[in-house]
Amino acid sequence: MASVGPVTAQQMHFSEPLPLQSGALLPSYQLTYETHGTLNAERSNAVLVCHALNASHHVAGVDASGNKGWWDNLIGPGKPLDTNRFFVIGVNNPGSCFGSTGPMHLNPLSPVPGRVWGADFPVVTVEDWVDAQARLVQRLGITQLAAVLGGSLGGMQALAWTLRHPGMLRHCIAVATAPNLSAQNIAFNEVARRAIVTDPDFHGGHFYEHGVVPKRGLRVARMVGHITYLAEDAMDSKFGRELKAAALRYSTQDIEFQIESYLRHQGDKFAEYFDANTYLLITRALDYFDPAAAHGGDLARAFAANAETLRKRFLLVSFTTDWRFAPERSREIVKALVANRIACSYAEIDAPHGHDAFLLEDPRYHAVMRSTFERIAAEVAAGVRS
Amino acid sequence: MASVGPVTAQQMHFSEPLPLQSGALLPSYQLTYETHGTLNAERSNAVLVCHALNASHHVAGVDASGNKGWWDNLIGPGKPLDTNRFFVIGVNNPGSCFGSTGPMHLNPLSPVPGRVWGADFPVVTVEDWVDAQARLVQRLGITQLAAVLGGSLGGMQALAWTLRHPGMLRHCIAVATAPNLSAQNIAFNEVARRAIVTDPDFHGGHFYEHGVVPKRGLRVARMVGHITYLAEDAMDSKFGRELKAAALRYSTQDIEFQIESYLRHQGDKFAEYFDANTYLLITRALDYFDPAAAHGGDLARAFAANAETLRKRFLLVSFTTDWRFAPERSREIVKALVANRIACSYAEIDAPHGHDAFLLEDPRYHAVMRSTFERIAAEVAAGVRS
Repeated sequence: MASVGPVTAQQMHFSEPLPLQSGALLPSYQLTYETHGTLNAERSNAVLVCHALNASHHVAGVDASGNKGWWDNLIGPGKPLDTNRFFVIGVNNPGSCFGSTGPMHLNPLSPVPGRVWGADFPVVTVEDWVDAQARLVQRLGITQLAAVLGGSLGGMQALAWTLRHPGMLRHCIAVATAPNLSAQNIAFNEVARRAIVTDPDFHGGHFYEHGVVPKRGLRVARMVGHITYLAEDAMDSKFGRELKAAALRYSTQDIEFQIESYLRHQGDKFAEYFDANTYLLITRALDYFDPAAAHGGDLARAFAANAETLRKRFLLVSFTTDWRFAPERSREIVKALVANRIACSYAEIDAPHGHDAFLLEDPRYHAVMRSTFERIAAEVAAGVRS
Repeated sequence: MASVGPVTAQQMHFSEPLPLQSGALLPSYQLTYETHGTLNAERSNAVLVCHALNASHHVAGVDASGNKGWWDNLIGPGKPLDTNRFFVIGVNNPGSCFGSTGPMHLNPLSPVPGRVWGADFPVVTVEDWVDAQARLVQRLGITQLAAVLGGSLGGMQALAWTLRHPGMLRHCIAVATAPNLSAQNIAFNEVARRAIVTDPDFHGGHFYEHGVVPKRGLRVARMVGHITYLAEDAMDSKFGRELKAAALRYSTQDIEFQIESYLRHQGDKFAEYFDANTYLLITRALDYFDPAAAHGGDLARAFAANAETLRKRFLLVSFTTDWRFAPERSREIVKALVANRIACSYAEIDAPHGHDAFLLEDPRYHAVMRSTFERIAAEVAAGVRS
C-alpha cells in the first residue's frame, strides 16, 4: 500500500504557560507535530495519534531525514487508519527530544543566561501531555476529534483524554496499554533510571554543558527496556542460544551469543539519538499514570465521574504474549467500562511478538483497526456528533 | 527447629592444576568449604550442596561473622536435610568471592609480581566447578555421595554431576533449575555485565589496583537480577504502587515508590560485598551451561550417554510462579530422564514467591525435600550402594 510520502514537521508556539499536575508551570513552549490527509469542512474527521516512550510526532510517511514514521504500516492512503478519509495528527509531547520543548532547550527561568533545562525540566505527566495536546487541537480549529489513538504509553494518553477532555473526542482506541504500572513495571523503569543517573557523564542532568552524553547509562536503560518489549518465546525463536562465532570463546566481556549482539546494537543506536533527561521524564510519566488513584483505586469510579460525556465507543486491543502490559491489564479497563455501561470493544490478539506487536503488521490486529476506523469514517460521513 | 550452631569454614589446597572446559588450566588453588553432621563409618551419608549465583559454602549455622547460612531453613538437626543423619558439605566454587580462589587472589601467572587475577581469572564453567568439587569429595575420602543437591545454578551443578561423575553420587536433587538459559535469561545477564563492565571504576577488571569498586555497575546488575527472582504478583502484593512519602514528590531522581526503595537497597547491599569479576564469571557459567549442546541439542541423548551409571534417582522441583526458570524448563529435564527410563520424581510447587521460592520455607516444598531425604537416609542405613 502507498505511503503518505514526504512529510514536513510543523511547529506551534504557545505563549500561555501550561499548568502541570505537580503544581509547577511549563512556561511558553512549542509543540512539534505533523498532519496527514485533509481536515473536512465540518472539521469532524481528525484523529490524534499519541506516541509512546521513544517515538515522536512522526507517525507516517518519510521525514526530511529520510526516516519512515513509526506507525507507517497503520497510517496512510488505503491503510487501516486511512489518510484519504481522516485528518491524522501526530504530536511530540513536551519533555521529549524530537522538537517539542524539552530538557535540551533553553530554560527561561534559569538565572544563568543560555542555560538549558536539563534535569530542571518540570516533571510532566500523561495528563499534562493530554492538556498540551488539547490546546494544539483547539488551535487547529477542531472542537471534537473523531478519535484519539495510542499504543502502550500512547494508549494511556488516549484513556486520559476520555477522563480530562471527554467532550473533545468521540472514540478512544487504546492498544497494548494498562490502567497503571505494576510494581515490576516500575522496577524495570527504576533500573533504567539508575543506570542513567549514576553514569558519571550524567552530571546531575546537566551533561549538555560538559559536552558529553551519559551513553553508558542510556545503553543499559535501552537494553533492559528492550527485553521487556519482546516475548520470551519470540526471543528464543529469533536468537535462541545461537553463537556469534563458530565456537565459544570463553570470554566474560566479548560477545558470545547473538542475543547479546542484538541487545548491544539496540543500546548503541538508542544512545546516539535519545536524550537522557527525556528518558527519566517519560519513564516517570509512565510510573505516575494511575487514573484510579484519585478514586480509591477503583478504575470504574474514575470513568463514572465522566459517565455522562463518556457515551463514546472504546476499542481496547491487547496481545497474548505481551508480558509488559499483559491482556489482564486491558481487561481491567474493559471491566471498569462495562461497570459503567460504556460501549466498548475488546480484541485480544494471539500474536507472538510481545509488547512490540502493537507496532507490527499483524493481519488480525490490523483487520480490527481497519474495521473500527471504517465504522468511524461512516459516522463522520453521516455527520454523527456526540 | 535447632540450628547447627556456630560453624567454621575450612580450606583445602590443591596443588595439581585443574583443567578447564576452555582449554586453560587453573593453577594450584584452594577451596573453602564447611561441613555439618558426621561422616559415618561407611562414608556413605555425605550430601554435597552446590551454591547459586551470590551464595557460598556457608549453607547452614552461624559463621564467624554472625551470618546465618543461606539454606539454614533446610539444613540442620531435625530439618529436611537432617544433619543428625547426613554429613553435609557446602563448598565455595573457584572464581567466587567467598574464600575459594578467585579474581581477588594473587595471579601466579602474571609477569607483574603481586598482581591479582582480576579480569584475567580463567573463565570457569559449571562442569569445571563440578570437577573441582569432585576432587574435594575424593580428598575427604568419599567415593560416593548419597546425594548432590542444588537450586538454580546449584541445580545445574547437581545435573552436571550426574553427567560427569555418574558413579560418584546416588541421588541428584535439582531445584528451580533449567537445562540451559533461554535467550531472555542470557539477555538479562548481559545487561548486568554491561552495567559492570562500562562502569568507569571497573578499569577493565583491574579495579583492585586502583583502590575502587565498580559499585554503580554492581548496583544496577543486582537490581535487574533481583526483579527476575521475584514473581510479578508477589511484587504487587508486597509493594504494589505504594509510595515512600505521603504524596507524590514529582521527581525523576528521588525515590517515589516503595519498590524503588527496596531495589536500591538490594543493589547497595550487594555492591558492598560482591566482587564484580565474580559476577561476570558466574553469569557466564550460567550462560554456557548446556549439556544437550554436545548431543545436537537433545538432552535425552546427553543422559543416554551415561545411562548405565545413571541408575540413580532424580528429584526435580519447580515453582509455579518462577518465571526465571519456569516449570516448563524442569519438565524438559524430566522428559529427557523419562526417555531414558531413569527413575525421577518431579514436584511442581504452587508457591507465590517466584524463583526465590527455592530459598524459602514453603511447607509443601520442604515436605517433598524431607520425605526424599528420609528415603535416602533409609537407603544409607540399609547399606544401599549403586
